[in-house]
Amino acid sequence: MPTVTFLGTSCMQPTKERNHSALFFPHDTEGILFDCGENTQRQLKIAGIRPTKITRIFLTHWHGDHVLGLPGLLQTMAAAPYVGTLHVYGPKGSKERFGYMFRAFDFDAKLDLVVHDIEPGVVCDASLFEVHAAMLDHGVPCFGYRWVEKDKRRIKVAAVKKLGIPDGPLLGELQRGRSIEWKGKRVPADELTFLQKGKVIAYVVDTAPCKGAIDLAQGADLLICEAAYANALEDKGEQYKHLTARDAATIARKADAKQLVLTHFSQRYASTEDIEEDAKEIFPDVVCAYDFLKVKC
Amino acid sequence: MPTVTFLGTSCMQPTKERNHSALFFPHDTEGILFDCGENTQRQLKIAGIRPTKITRIFLTHWHGDHVLGLPGLLQTMAAAPYVGTLHVYGPKGSKERFGYMFRAFDFDAKLDLVVHDIEPGVVCDASLFEVHAAMLDHGVPCFGYRWVEKDKRRIKVAAVKKLGIPDGPLLGELQRGRSIEWKGKRVPADELTFLQKGKVIAYVVDTAPCKGAIDLAQGADLLICEAAYANALEDKGEQYKHLTARDAATIARKADAKQLVLTHFSQRYASTEDIEEDAKEIFPDVVCAYDFLKVKC
Repeated sequence: MPTVTFLGTSCMQPTKERNHSALFFPHDTEGILFDCGENTQRQLKIAGIRPTKITRIFLTHWHGDHVLGLPGLLQTMAAAPYVGTLHVYGPKGSKERFGYMFRAFDFDAKLDLVVHDIEPGVVCDASLFEVHAAMLDHGVPCFGYRWVEKDKRRIKVAAVKKLGIPDGPLLGELQRGRSIEWKGKRVPADELTFLQKGKVIAYVVDTAPCKGAIDLAQGADLLICEAAYANALEDKGEQYKHLTARDAATIARKADAKQLVLTHFSQRYASTEDIEEDAKEIFPDVVCAYDFLKVKC
Repeated sequence: MPTVTFLGTSCMQPTKERNHSALFFPHDTEGILFDCGENTQRQLKIAGIRPTKITRIFLTHWHGDHVLGLPGLLQTMAAAPYVGTLHVYGPKGSKERFGYMFRAFDFDAKLDLVVHDIEPGVVCDASLFEVHAAMLDHGVPCFGYRWVEKDKRRIKVAAVKKLGIPDGPLLGELQRGRSIEWKGKRVPADELTFLQKGKVIAYVVDTAPCKGAIDLAQGADLLICEAAYANALEDKGEQYKHLTARDAATIARKADAKQLVLTHFSQRYASTEDIEEDAKEIFPDVVCAYDFLKVKC
């Protein structure tokens, strides 16, 4: 059950209360970061999350409010030092941009970094999850992401105990979905195990309403979605290719998402009350994020 | 009488309480920023300082904790929009580094920017102040700075009143240091005016003890100096080419500075009490800076 920490919830400019975009969640031995706005390394420190926990960074696009924390975070991770390989995913040209970044700033320590210039589709197939990317509509190449935990086969503990099967290799076989021999009888895996459905988290920011956003959010346990503006400013949303509260809630409803958390608010909103009210009219299970909010999914 | 605002007082890594290096002070129509660590734009916002006030940025060197706030600050200034020309001064190669920075990140708005690759000496001669740079000893090209307010000629108000000289062009002549004719008699400027000595602010961070640091600090009204470590960690200071409290206080004493403010503390110090005590043994008029501290000089 991943717990997502919002590290930044502002839009183009940070405010006293809101940092630029980033969100983190740990999963087993991995740590996932979506976007890396300026000052993400300090937000991690304030949140009590060690930067070396991060194993994969998914970048939506290269506007500053989503990426300017990269050089600082990478330097701090390298100095830790960082063990393992850090994978970064972003639109075409990301690899080249990292090259320029390393020439712009002094990097004393190095880390094992692999930058992936991605195309829409499955961009990451890890042992316990997959990540899908879809193009959004933001004027520059911009991706939304869908993190999909793989289903887990669980033991039916009571049934196993009833048969007297001890802890050990037989249970391992069952967990891998294989039938076993027990007391001269073949027992199919399905009789003693069940499939626990994996969780789905969708991350959709910086876009006009588009099909990609709905596809990513389809049936998601948690949809994290931009709502830069309240409904009253829908002209601004159109002009800058950002979502309003209504847009975000409509995506959640059309996609039949289970839970909606709004983020990436324009700096004009000291309070997000209007945005939340606007969204609730269309999708009731909604909250507005703030920096350091934690959400279980 | 410039008032300096400390925007960041940490060393290599930010802490919950301390941001990366930057300090700002306004002067007449100009705004001076020394260094621009990550998150400087948000620190300015919290301090209530409009980024468009900045007219000149002086970079000591290109380690991340001194420069990673540049792209974000420049974007925010450009979007404001920024009126006038922004001058940035830094070690040789700065111009090239800005080129890479602009290719690494998306910059929608542009501003009129002039980057100066500087050499030691007078690097800026503005109408009301000069800035001198001297090489420090940090392993990479690194400058310290000395901001020198030009002396101002002031009217001796009582003397002028006594002679009955009215407001107007004659006073202007006196302020420019020129003699005037009054009631058929020549009156030299020195009789009716005096020279008000300009203030001097020295900024010395990221260095081993060196002559350049003492030269910059000579007789300064305010010496802002690194003290990364308390005396007990002088081996770390030597190893990493940073100053201890004793080093900083010795520079202040040798240079006969009037006031010493320490900054750029290693993240290991939750409290700077030891650093302040160590420095006081050598130079009594010393305080340790914290984020958003304001110091008049």
